[in-house]
Amino acid sequence: MVGGADAVRARVALLGCGNVGGVLASLLTERAGEIAERTGVEFELIGVAVADPTRPRPGVPAHLVTGDAKGLVARDDVDVVVELIGGLDPARTLVESSLRAGRPVVTGNKALLAEAGAELAALAAEHGVDLLYEAAVGGAIPAIRTLRESLAGERVLRVMGIVNGTTNFILTTMAEEGVAYDDALAEAQRLGLAERDPTADVEGHDAAAKAAILAGLAFGSGVQGSEIPCEGITSVRAVDVAYADRLGYVVKLLAVAEQVDGGAAVSVRVHPAMVPREHPLASVRGSFNAVFVEGERCGELMLYGRGAGGVPTASAVLGDLVDAARNLRSGAHAPPPRRGAVRLQPPDDVRSAFYLSLDVVDRPGVLAAVATVFGDHGVSIKAMEQVGLRDEARLVFLTHTAREGDVRATLDGLRRLPSVDRVGGVLRVVLPEGEDGAGD
Amino acid sequence: MVGGADAVRARVALLGCGNVGGVLASLLTERAGEIAERTGVEFELIGVAVADPTRPRPGVPAHLVTGDAKGLVARDDVDVVVELIGGLDPARTLVESSLRAGRPVVTGNKALLAEAGAELAALAAEHGVDLLYEAAVGGAIPAIRTLRESLAGERVLRVMGIVNGTTNFILTTMAEEGVAYDDALAEAQRLGLAERDPTADVEGHDAAAKAAILAGLAFGSGVQGSEIPCEGITSVRAVDVAYADRLGYVVKLLAVAEQVDGGAAVSVRVHPAMVPREHPLASVRGSFNAVFVEGERCGELMLYGRGAGGVPTASAVLGDLVDAARNLRSGAHAPPPRRGAVRLQPPDDVRSAFYLSLDVVDRPGVLAAVATVFGDHGVSIKAMEQVGLRDEARLVFLTHTAREGDVRATLDGLRRLPSVDRVGGVLRVVLPEGEDGAGD
Repeated sequence: MVGGADAVRARVALLGCGNVGGVLASLLTERAGEIAERTGVEFELIGVAVADPTRPRPGVPAHLVTGDAKGLVARDDVDVVVELIGGLDPARTLVESSLRAGRPVVTGNKALLAEAGAELAALAAEHGVDLLYEAAVGGAIPAIRTLRESLAGERVLRVMGIVNGTTNFILTTMAEEGVAYDDALAEAQRLGLAERDPTADVEGHDAAAKAAILAGLAFGSGVQGSEIPCEGITSVRAVDVAYADRLGYVVKLLAVAEQVDGGAAVSVRVHPAMVPREHPLASVRGSFNAVFVEGERCGELMLYGRGAGGVPTASAVLGDLVDAARNLRSGAHAPPPRRGAVRLQPPDDVRSAFYLSLDVVDRPGVLAAVATVFGDHGVSIKAMEQVGLRDEARLVFLTHTAREGDVRATLDGLRRLPSVDRVGGVLRVVLPEGEDGAGD
Repeated sequence: MVGGADAVRARVALLGCGNVGGVLASLLTERAGEIAERTGVEFELIGVAVADPTRPRPGVPAHLVTGDAKGLVARDDVDVVVELIGGLDPARTLVESSLRAGRPVVTGNKALLAEAGAELAALAAEHGVDLLYEAAVGGAIPAIRTLRESLAGERVLRVMGIVNGTTNFILTTMAEEGVAYDDALAEAQRLGLAERDPTADVEGHDAAAKAAILAGLAFGSGVQGSEIPCEGITSVRAVDVAYADRLGYVVKLLAVAEQVDGGAAVSVRVHPAMVPREHPLASVRGSFNAVFVEGERCGELMLYGRGAGGVPTASAVLGDLVDAARNLRSGAHAPPPRRGAVRLQPPDDVRSAFYLSLDVVDRPGVLAAVATVFGDHGVSIKAMEQVGLRDEARLVFLTHTAREGDVRATLDGLRRLPSVDRVGGVLRVVLPEGEDGAGD
């Protein structure tokens, strides 16, 4: 059937040729015939724009390489633009000019989408073209398409994602090998799973950009990555991971977007959390990613897979390219994101159950003093355990669901108590199904 | 924006009003405004065809109910037909006449698709309309869309699904409560998770229909449910589930479709299997479903969720309805299934590792006799363990990967040995990652 009446031809301009772009370029050149057999779309790569066109790029035909990205997207014979440069500039200008010229854009640029996703989606809609970005969250995992298409009619209640493979690898290593954060990070760096400067991953910034994108798809436009309260994993201690295990939990870095106040607002945030061992997200190990969705009617869904890597991410880009090409022929375009802007809940009003550990002087009356601070701020204790440490004692608390602002005030109060030597680990707790976490 | 220039109107004819149809009918009437807000599609339910129109149906306006399905789909004002009658007749005739009339069809009818999916897809393509069936496999889980759209350009290597909630509930109960099959089945029946006559579920027929649908999407047309070798869970014994646990495995009923012979053929089958505890499918508990996909580039993906139930399944139907309505306006239609027909591998040529347990007379020389039978048929033993049972002994074997025909011949040979009292449990084994299972 290739080349038959029903074949679609799509000439592709590729911007950026790093890890993902390189794989895509060789797919579109060396495997084009096989892809056409499978999909009915004949792709032709007509140019690859890179910062340094003099560098040799194995697998990419030299005559296609150019240093002039602006010139490439302006060519008359481009059908689809793939943007894999990353970052805000010049990616944003190139994507905008492509959309304005009526050309569909496939991108994996989470930073750009987190910053300007709503504006770009509006621009794409205005010009009647696709803006597709499955590769921006969770590599090959079909999270974007599921939220945008399968769940289009669904009232989404909550999305929780393990969307950063580096931090999930570090937390998995800490849990399974009982090592400290620094050692797990060093192991991740040794394996090439963490950058030399791991800040964007371990401080949660990468996850926050993805949280913004997921929130936009699930709830509506207007959440920017930079607005999202974001806590990384650098202060997660081996001892807290071990306590979590004893209590039946696994520590994960979660990107959360959920309806609150009966749908009147949305809470979007990134933080480590204790996830019950029976929860599907608890079994997501190593550098794998997963997006867990709860909807009013669909119930619980989880999408799991390789969240990063050139080859899986290129697979996601290719899936979008096939869509964009088919839509070009039919004149259709991908469904628009959900309507309406989202009101963000202030971080202090977010409600969670908490785990916290305190090192205290081991003498009578300390627990009473500590409990009074909890009570004064309306934070209800669900369980407490004391572990002796020579002259000191460690108190481990699980709270009922509480306002985050109240927990913060409780922590401030505890730090001022003379008998409290140190406030150790503080982790939010995802409650097991069926526990409502209401205080007593 | 509702009712604005960009709104799409879609008049829906619903065939069948059981568990799923009833939920859908009330969604399309009572929640139409909310769905229009979210998706831009204004649905209007214009008729509901049922076998007994005199029966009262709460939530379904009485004036919409009719006993004349044929008349309903022939009406001029129908935009989309939803078929939720199930079974082959009259569903097939109604779906065919709808497609011939140029009307998109959304169906959840796994039996019909397993039997005639290829013909119906060809008919839909010929008339340029959608045939969508997300609800046919895994309820709300977006397995169909992922295979059809996200992985359109992907070379799929293997699909393994836990696609029957009843059997997964029974196996989970056996594993976690240590009870026998009959007791777990009785519990499933008590909870309404198994029918009074559970044959279609426990013998694997339901899973086989879904395996045919998944195989068609992953590899190409032409696999019929009735051709698929299918083994249910009725002979899974509590003792085998317990051994599996001790060896680090969980027993699951799997629907498998995989490339073999370097892509020259496909093996499609349904059988219980031992899945390594670290495998993502092992954590799918109770009545949940999951579809695990391995692709050349995307790597491992898993889609997890509620596989059945009126509400989650209606959510999947609604997602398809939104697609069909949007495509109607744009004149597009859903991508066609993969091209090319599939050659099925004969069951005897399928290669798996096996677990098997034998009750033997406890005297010297028995193991040698047993091992000789394995050797004679070229089945290589990877591990053996003997468990004493008064005058008898139980021998538990794990084999390396072997041809199924050879294992079958080995079992026949073992049954003829005077020292073998009984061949007990026989289970295929999904090997942990990194184990190739090659014989020595």
